[in-house]
Amino acid sequence: MSTEKPSCLLIGAGGVGVITAYSLFHADRSNVSMVVRSDYSHIVQEGYKIDSCDYGVVENWKPHQVFKNTVDAARSGSFFDYIVVTVKNIPDGPIQNRVHEVIRPVIESNHDVAPERRTSVLLIQNGIDIEKEILECFDKNKYHLCLLSGVQLIASTKLSPGYIHQKGLDHLIVGAFNPQDALAVQSAKDFVAMYNNEGHNHVEFDPRVRYTRWKKLLYNAAINTTTALVGLDVPRCLQFSQNKKGTEEYIFRPAMREIIAIAASEGITLESELVDFFVTITQNIVYKPSMCVDIEKGQLMELEIILGNPIRIAAQNEVPTPTLSMLYHLLTLLQGKVKEKKGLIHFDEKTARLVDQNNIPA
Amino acid sequence: MSTEKPSCLLIGAGGVGVITAYSLFHADRSNVSMVVRSDYSHIVQEGYKIDSCDYGVVENWKPHQVFKNTVDAARSGSFFDYIVVTVKNIPDGPIQNRVHEVIRPVIESNHDVAPERRTSVLLIQNGIDIEKEILECFDKNKYHLCLLSGVQLIASTKLSPGYIHQKGLDHLIVGAFNPQDALAVQSAKDFVAMYNNEGHNHVEFDPRVRYTRWKKLLYNAAINTTTALVGLDVPRCLQFSQNKKGTEEYIFRPAMREIIAIAASEGITLESELVDFFVTITQNIVYKPSMCVDIEKGQLMELEIILGNPIRIAAQNEVPTPTLSMLYHLLTLLQGKVKEKKGLIHFDEKTARLVDQNNIPA
Repeated sequence: MSTEKPSCLLIGAGGVGVITAYSLFHADRSNVSMVVRSDYSHIVQEGYKIDSCDYGVVENWKPHQVFKNTVDAARSGSFFDYIVVTVKNIPDGPIQNRVHEVIRPVIESNHDVAPERRTSVLLIQNGIDIEKEILECFDKNKYHLCLLSGVQLIASTKLSPGYIHQKGLDHLIVGAFNPQDALAVQSAKDFVAMYNNEGHNHVEFDPRVRYTRWKKLLYNAAINTTTALVGLDVPRCLQFSQNKKGTEEYIFRPAMREIIAIAASEGITLESELVDFFVTITQNIVYKPSMCVDIEKGQLMELEIILGNPIRIAAQNEVPTPTLSMLYHLLTLLQGKVKEKKGLIHFDEKTARLVDQNNIPA
Repeated sequence: MSTEKPSCLLIGAGGVGVITAYSLFHADRSNVSMVVRSDYSHIVQEGYKIDSCDYGVVENWKPHQVFKNTVDAARSGSFFDYIVVTVKNIPDGPIQNRVHEVIRPVIESNHDVAPERRTSVLLIQNGIDIEKEILECFDKNKYHLCLLSGVQLIASTKLSPGYIHQKGLDHLIVGAFNPQDALAVQSAKDFVAMYNNEGHNHVEFDPRVRYTRWKKLLYNAAINTTTALVGLDVPRCLQFSQNKKGTEEYIFRPAMREIIAIAASEGITLESELVDFFVTITQNIVYKPSMCVDIEKGQLMELEIILGNPIRIAAQNEVPTPTLSMLYHLLTLLQGKVKEKKGLIHFDEKTARLVDQNNIPA
């Protein structure tokens, strides 16, 4: 383990996070640390079993370091050049799971260990405007932060503790949230070089991060959301509809056209052919997108970054979003249902009102 | 049992249908026959136990005649002056459960028994344009049909076989689908007189049936539908929404305004204050409307008569219905989910297509 290599801390040890960590490990251009919450003891003892379309079957793999949480990572005294976040981004979820709270200990300890050294935070997550909460919570100059955007196309699932099955090729797109930030651009390019495994994965530098995020939102805001609302895979959503056309004509396409209009309102042009592309891309694949899976598992969805933020931009720029708004307000209710089941909110059936959390006696 | 009294055949022995039958029986101005499908043997042996806010506790009640189905009712040789239908109206459901198919044997046998005598068909059901399929299936003049519209406000549930619990007062509104049809108007008035139980229930003649149906649709098209889509009672739909206002502002009110516009396009004025009325009417009652209950029980919803028909009228009259259309197309997918579970449609996961039912080998 050379100390000259950059050090990466991966936060999020789900199906996608583990492959991302293994890709860096396999390329052998960085020291790879992981925060592994639920499977910690298992991984420390046995490591991962990975069955991967990119890397074959790997047994007993362990990253260079494993931490139970980011507080432990911070206490290790290590400096982490890259903090790579693959956990879900749920701004309306519990505060301790918010991205800024999760990375805070490491941001602070990095600053203590080497106050002048650059820290890159790479958010491999869906949605738009996700960098804003990081910029609001941390002084970019004080902490020498580079904020990097990652958009990943991959199909990988955790089948059981420590057992990962990667079915779909890893394609990672990395860039600087602010393309004017020369340091961040360089850091993104460095990461791409560090992540590249010739003949195994596909990684590319992205000079126009925001375009790429809007583009991926076409699918997520229109299709991912709809499947979550009705609990059906994509082909069933198409086939069960009125004349087998209703979903496409009245939900998918109008929702995507609204995303195109919002992006246009901030000067980003999404090609209209993308609508056809995304309508057809999963029409033959019996596949449930992430929000649909979350709802089925009783987990919170990435609703605010996929629909809430685009709708807020639309409101500011006076772009009408009737279709997205309906999806958003309906999904807000499903999200509330999950929150109640998880005990995050409390509904009093006698008063038929939500209980004000601040007024609950201790 | 006087043969001079008019004879009523009640089809639909759920919580509402049984109270409707009992109301007629209690008034003692008609002979009351019922079609009892699932509880037939139980009722023939023990009769009903009814726990009613209108009539108190009634034990071992039996109507004058009980039939297993409408074919048996037709075979009895009786003439039924009133065919009272309280089953759900689901035009996209199995053909044998369609209203016209269910009543057909009795319409035909009535014609055989007394070709010149008038048959009144009273549809106590939700929705708009429900009389059309009856008029398309039967020659009104040949069968001397009077088509009557019933809108019922009541809360009554079947708790177990033969056990009915009526919690909410029975308020029945009856009129002629066609107010120009003098015979039907008279028949409706006769029914009102026959149904009235002074001091127990409330029944009234309705001179403007279509207005009343549109009015009830305000609630059903906007609120009933939304609760079904997200599987939550009305107060939760309100309280879980964005700023506790999102559901009202972005779903309930726009949907109701669209119903008002559709009704206006055919010359029916629904007062705009009705929107406030219906938004607040169940805001404090932890109550799941019918479509929500249907989905939870894995049953088909009355989707086409509550949303499909209004949207088709809107399309003809060029009234925009963005909110109702979204609800409709999303609920169509949930309806498809129920159909697949019930084996009414078949989806082939290999081809990711619905199987054409006509091409299934026997």
